[in-house]
Amino acid sequence: FYSSEIKKCTIIPGDGIGPEISAAVQKIFSVAQVPIEWESVDVTPVRGPDGKFGIPQAAIDSVNRNKIGLKGPLMTPVGKGHRSLNLALRKEFNLYANVRPCRSLEGYKTLYDHVDVVTIRENTEGEYSGIEHEIVDGVVQSIKLITEDASRRVAEFAFQYTKENKRRKLTAVHKANIMRMSDGLFLRCCREMAEKYPDVKFEEKYLDTVCLNMVQDPTQYDVLVMPNLYGDILSDMCAGLVGGLGLTPSGNIGLSGALFESVHGTAPDIAGQDKANPTALLLSAVMMLRYMGLNDHAVKIENACFETIKEAKYLTGDLGGKAKCSEFTNAICEKIGR
Amino acid sequence: FYSSEIKKCTIIPGDGIGPEISAAVQKIFSVAQVPIEWESVDVTPVRGPDGKFGIPQAAIDSVNRNKIGLKGPLMTPVGKGHRSLNLALRKEFNLYANVRPCRSLEGYKTLYDHVDVVTIRENTEGEYSGIEHEIVDGVVQSIKLITEDASRRVAEFAFQYTKENKRRKLTAVHKANIMRMSDGLFLRCCREMAEKYPDVKFEEKYLDTVCLNMVQDPTQYDVLVMPNLYGDILSDMCAGLVGGLGLTPSGNIGLSGALFESVHGTAPDIAGQDKANPTALLLSAVMMLRYMGLNDHAVKIENACFETIKEAKYLTGDLGGKAKCSEFTNAICEKIGR
Ligand SMILES: CC(C)[C@H](C(=O)O)[C@@H](O)C(=O)O
Ligand SMILES: CC(C)[C@H](C(=O)O)[C@@H](O)C(=O)O
Repeated sequence: FYSSEIKKCTIIPGDGIGPEISAAVQKIFSVAQVPIEWESVDVTPVRGPDGKFGIPQAAIDSVNRNKIGLKGPLMTPVGKGHRSLNLALRKEFNLYANVRPCRSLEGYKTLYDHVDVVTIRENTEGEYSGIEHEIVDGVVQSIKLITEDASRRVAEFAFQYTKENKRRKLTAVHKANIMRMSDGLFLRCCREMAEKYPDVKFEEKYLDTVCLNMVQDPTQYDVLVMPNLYGDILSDMCAGLVGGLGLTPSGNIGLSGALFESVHGTAPDIAGQDKANPTALLLSAVMMLRYMGLNDHAVKIENACFETIKEAKYLTGDLGGKAKCSEFTNAICEKIGR
Repeated sequence: FYSSEIKKCTIIPGDGIGPEISAAVQKIFSVAQVPIEWESVDVTPVRGPDGKFGIPQAAIDSVNRNKIGLKGPLMTPVGKGHRSLNLALRKEFNLYANVRPCRSLEGYKTLYDHVDVVTIRENTEGEYSGIEHEIVDGVVQSIKLITEDASRRVAEFAFQYTKENKRRKLTAVHKANIMRMSDGLFLRCCREMAEKYPDVKFEEKYLDTVCLNMVQDPTQYDVLVMPNLYGDILSDMCAGLVGGLGLTPSGNIGLSGALFESVHGTAPDIAGQDKANPTALLLSAVMMLRYMGLNDHAVKIENACFETIKEAKYLTGDLGGKAKCSEFTNAICEKIGR
């Protein structure tokens, strides 16, 4: 990724407001002269031989070829037994670490100041194993699957991330007092990795304690690593602290590629009306640029976005403003062009 | 419980600050002339034939006899493989519903105003089943067990609670988009119960969404019902919104008895120093009074406690004050005696 030649990136615009916010990001990238070429693929669910909906082969091929992608929100097919395509993508490409930074935005007031936390979520197993049985009528078990390989892999990623980004501290979040074996294994992998990263400050906390502390004073946390479901919960909660899923980026990192996505919904109620806020997708795209080593472009675009929000002249409806998506986008472009 | 004769209640003072805060509650109850007689039992862990620590028989007998108890914090025996005695008690007496009201206290400022939510947590199964296996080296599964019986039981309790207490709304919290069968079963039981309580407003929300919404505006929720682990998380988070576990009560309701407890820790660092805040245990005892039908006493004691906090003349260290536990307690007693 560190060459200066033009790199191809897959873009999956997605459903609902997906196409508008994807177009916004593409426009901003082109004004910023980011040296990438987009390959746009649709992920309309296709029905497989088993009757279940899946991801079209063209999309899979594109991501496999480019090894990097940006993705808008996807609708989950309605009806019983269909799994989320968002999840299917994470599984398909073995995107084992889900990284979600949540930072207070200057100029966008919430109850909390100076929030700056990053959740790193194991993204392939745990409570998301998909293994469930009805043992007898009215008795169901779901299996939380924790493996040493996946735990170590995400632990290593988290320590590396904390170190590389010069962050203050890494917290492993668990309920090993209850799930002694599964969360215990996850925790052991984190502890072992801690020994390999003696310069990274490491601590362990119960999930319930983290939730309690987080709403009282989020500044006591920095980077957090945890099993799948805990990450789902904590990342949403942290997003809530700084303004919600419309403002927070997300990256799914794999062994041989990465997919960056906004994790808000498709917002069908405002789709096609030029009202959506492209910030989450744009900041995800900025994460992508950093991942690709295009730091200068990342900084430039990020600053333009933050400034536009801070100025509060062109805010979309979700941020209390009246601007259209295109006006907000143009304001960012203008700052980049300066 | 609705007779006027004196009722016997078990009290388990607990470890650390447990004895002090229990004494405070007993003092307040005696000043308020609550018609109950305490039967105090210790729960020092006893080692059973299997080498594991358990609850002493005398404590079990007392709760079984009185069918009602109040409990301070218990230490979990240190060392591998010991289960929490708090949990052991919930299991032993089949206390299937854990009720934790979290209300903003007038005079104690947090970031949130007007919080008034109640989490109702399934308390016997789910992620707390205790069933775990190592399948092969480095591959562990924990079983989340959801049964129709337990789900229906807690759902019924939640609807009944919402109705009786004239609450606004009941929200079932789940991740049935991921754990389709287990959370799906839980949700189905809630839906079926909703049909039997057409006058209770009912809605369903994803756990991650609830976490996000809750930190942004807790007033959009009222009563919430959910599987075991989700309740552990959400109840702590909600406690955080109003000031932490030192201020929030908890009740474990069973088919033939109930155990009320403060859910904060044993605070060994300040134990025995007359510094602890008895509020959580006192408010738990107030819940107990309501459960017993002693509403007048409940209201009187609760108001005295709230007033004392509001006056802020005798606050303990955790609330930013300098008062001793005994001074805070005396202030409450004085108000009751007036
Ligand atoms: C859409 C849903 C399946 C998904 C999840 O549960 O992981 C979402 O909440 C997320 O956090 O990306
Ligand atoms: C002490 C611990 C085992 C317990 C739990 O996980 O349920 C506690 O957090 C609670 O909420 O009562």
